[in-house]
Amino acid sequence: MADTRTIQRRIWAGLYTGVKRFTWGHFLVAAIILASLILLAIQTEPELSPIIRSRLNFIDALIPVFFAAEFSLRFWAAGADRRFAGLAGRRRFTFRWVTVFDFLAFAPEIIMLVLFPELWAGARWVRLFRLFRLLKLFAMFPAFREIGMAVRDAGRQLGATLAMATLLLFSAAVMLYVAEADAQPEAFGSVPRALWWAVATLTTVGYGDVYPITVMGKVMAGFVAILGVGLVALPAGILASSFAERLRRRK
Amino acid sequence: MADTRTIQRRIWAGLYTGVKRFTWGHFLVAAIILASLILLAIQTEPELSPIIRSRLNFIDALIPVFFAAEFSLRFWAAGADRRFAGLAGRRRFTFRWVTVFDFLAFAPEIIMLVLFPELWAGARWVRLFRLFRLLKLFAMFPAFREIGMAVRDAGRQLGATLAMATLLLFSAAVMLYVAEADAQPEAFGSVPRALWWAVATLTTVGYGDVYPITVMGKVMAGFVAILGVGLVALPAGILASSFAERLRRRK
Amino acid sequence: MADTRTIQRRIWAGLYTGVKRFTWGHFLVAAIILASLILLAIQTEPELSPIIRSRLNFIDALIPVFFAAEFSLRFWAAGADRRFAGLAGRRRFTFRWVTVFDFLAFAPEIIMLVLFPELWAGARWVRLFRLFRLLKLFAMFPAFREIGMAVRDAGRQLGATLAMATLLLFSAAVMLYVAEADAQPEAFGSVPRALWWAVATLTTVGYGDVYPITVMGKVMAGFVAILGVGLVALPAGILASSFAERLRRRK
Amino acid sequence: MADTRTIQRRIWAGLYTGVKRFTWGHFLVAAIILASLILLAIQTEPELSPIIRSRLNFIDALIPVFFAAEFSLRFWAAGADRRFAGLAGRRRFTFRWVTVFDFLAFAPEIIMLVLFPELWAGARWVRLFRLFRLLKLFAMFPAFREIGMAVRDAGRQLGATLAMATLLLFSAAVMLYVAEADAQPEAFGSVPRALWWAVATLTTVGYGDVYPITVMGKVMAGFVAILGVGLVALPAGILASSFAERLRRRK
Repeated sequence: MADTRTIQRRIWAGLYTGVKRFTWGHFLVAAIILASLILLAIQTEPELSPIIRSRLNFIDALIPVFFAAEFSLRFWAAGADRRFAGLAGRRRFTFRWVTVFDFLAFAPEIIMLVLFPELWAGARWVRLFRLFRLLKLFAMFPAFREIGMAVRDAGRQLGATLAMATLLLFSAAVMLYVAEADAQPEAFGSVPRALWWAVATLTTVGYGDVYPITVMGKVMAGFVAILGVGLVALPAGILASSFAERLRRRK
Repeated sequence: MADTRTIQRRIWAGLYTGVKRFTWGHFLVAAIILASLILLAIQTEPELSPIIRSRLNFIDALIPVFFAAEFSLRFWAAGADRRFAGLAGRRRFTFRWVTVFDFLAFAPEIIMLVLFPELWAGARWVRLFRLFRLLKLFAMFPAFREIGMAVRDAGRQLGATLAMATLLLFSAAVMLYVAEADAQPEAFGSVPRALWWAVATLTTVGYGDVYPITVMGKVMAGFVAILGVGLVALPAGILASSFAERLRRRK
Repeated sequence: MADTRTIQRRIWAGLYTGVKRFTWGHFLVAAIILASLILLAIQTEPELSPIIRSRLNFIDALIPVFFAAEFSLRFWAAGADRRFAGLAGRRRFTFRWVTVFDFLAFAPEIIMLVLFPELWAGARWVRLFRLFRLLKLFAMFPAFREIGMAVRDAGRQLGATLAMATLLLFSAAVMLYVAEADAQPEAFGSVPRALWWAVATLTTVGYGDVYPITVMGKVMAGFVAILGVGLVALPAGILASSFAERLRRRK
Repeated sequence: MADTRTIQRRIWAGLYTGVKRFTWGHFLVAAIILASLILLAIQTEPELSPIIRSRLNFIDALIPVFFAAEFSLRFWAAGADRRFAGLAGRRRFTFRWVTVFDFLAFAPEIIMLVLFPELWAGARWVRLFRLFRLLKLFAMFPAFREIGMAVRDAGRQLGATLAMATLLLFSAAVMLYVAEADAQPEAFGSVPRALWWAVATLTTVGYGDVYPITVMGKVMAGFVAILGVGLVALPAGILASSFAERLRRRK
């Protein structure tokens, strides 16, 4: 049994020592995640030949299997860490965010693959599950966690400005609905429809598929745009300041 | 009479202790405001069946009644607070922003409902009054007041940059009017018309319904865009810095 | 002569004590500037009746006369100020920015009005001179000068980022010209033409009149947009930080 | 030989004393770089007469020759500087960034000019090499290096937010592909195609050539836009804060 302990300890040290130091295990997993995302993008190309497609599908089915194996290995190897040894340690390990994200990176897809194989190959929305792999990536790199901490530092202000931005979006939609519903029933005929305009305008994307055409609508839209653009840009500014504060304190 | 005083005190403590601590009263009122806004959005959908519409109209008419009742209850219960007891206290309570916003959340609609019921159901712009309910929401949550305080901290700089942005918008409109009026009389034939272009450009929304087509117009527009985009984004940046400063001082 | 000195002193005190304290003179001049700008906007409306137009033209011609009178009055009254008394003081007063801006607010228009009255009424670009009145406004309010000072504080960084943004605009135009010239000769057939695309994209205005359609052009445009948008937004961010720094130091 | 040493020393002092002090040599080189870029832009104009074009081509071929001469001169004169004297000093000089950028400003073009003269005149992508001259410009002015240092200060945070923005772009593309592939196979029929939409939206450029049309697509796009716009704007904010920090420390 001593041999097994040694292997366990070596695997834990070599692959998962923690988020502070990078190991070749981290890089392998990160590389596979990125490769799987590129694979996901390529698979959606409609002009792929059937042979290539079936091969890509095969590789694609292997990836959740790899993540499941990696998850099991890590779960087993975690016993070598004093923090996660014993039953209580195991429980603590199970309910870490890292573990949950790791689990989501393969579990929904394996369940789909086993129970609904025809959905796996056919349904498009199944691919959305693969985005859970990004969470695994985020949990792995400490630089990403710094984003999370900057968000938490300014949490209250971010929440307030996001809520205010949402209410502003709504108000803008109501205003433009009132001004433009008669002139453009298709685009502004109801508040939910006008919301699409409000989002496109206040985020300054401005596709140009909908825009006010009446004088009153243009005046309202101009007013809302000048005041509102700032408000919608505010969360980014607050977050940037929160980052800057962390940077300053570290120095 | 002792009983009434106790009820009064309990209502005040349970519902309106102030903005520092949340009570279930706050959450009930906030939920009803948000529900009423969702209701407002749904009501504008033109494809609603007449039965559903009449029911929604009925609920919609109840909301200002609820706010009126809530307002009266709060007004009465405020007597339990030492600050608002007595005639002078009542007067102080009446002219608080919170009270004014609470009043605007139901009064214009009740007046409309009683005096012009046919307008209430028919006229679209009447719905704009319902946006006053948002003020009630803003007055209720301290996080929103923090936005107000950050605005006040940087008030002078915000004012100067907003004024400068307005003057820049105007200058840009005059310049493009001069350059493009002959080529595009519909879009740039007068300064007020060119203002629509200026707003869409300097807020970087850029719908694409109007844009310069002459070489001189493009050169001017490019010049204005590079310098002006920053100026119009400045208020948001200043506001974000003001938030950051508040955050730092609190720590 | 004592009487004249008293009048001179009173006018200087009442109208022009300086930029630190507002007088009714400041507000009158500011109101006339704003009114003249609104007048400028209205005059460009092509649907005005000839009678109204001729009346507006008359008022419009009075405004530079008013500014000339105000300029002369101020020049004369400045003698009451010790700093501007005597010949050397006069010279110092003449070459202040405020004086230069005041002069530009009426001189070009009076010269036009006297020498080329037919151009004054007809030529559109003559209206551009009226924007000089804005400089007068800027020189009058200290809040605007604070913008100037914030610009000066971060001058070197602003210069470097603006230069870098300009070079990036140029590089983006060259790249898209290389990628798209064959596919879209009208929009990307030369570097100057592609510059219009680069300005519209990197300022994030994105009218949608020109955009890449080839795969190579889209890849390059995407790459340039992600990296470049930040750079073009940088001057605004730096300026906002410079404002924030001034705000902090004043507290 | 003493004469040669003196010339060497004078050239080094007059042209290249370093990046801290400007010499007329710096300005000459900067002017030629800027002139060469303007030349590059003019040459791409398709309406040039053949005579002018051939003359511009001649000037254009001279520029890399000038840079090669300047490079050799500098290389030789560097011996006058104690840091770059001797064999080890030469080696140190050779592998400075400034030297590498200087080399790239002429070498690829001279090689093209000598080995593939028909490509030099004809192929459009050859012009991309001329953008290397910008690197020479960046290496020359210390204000540009300050941008580089601000980037390095916030390097880790910039990296994390850029990576996060890239992953968000990808996720947005997958989401919109799932929602819109059936409705708009041309624009959203695969993830790489949807990426073009994601870049245009999250950088807030919003050309309007592609946008969601289904309800589900619009809801997803709105959600992504509100949250994502901030994230993509974050690197600029972080960079601006990093600049501000440098500014503050210098004061």
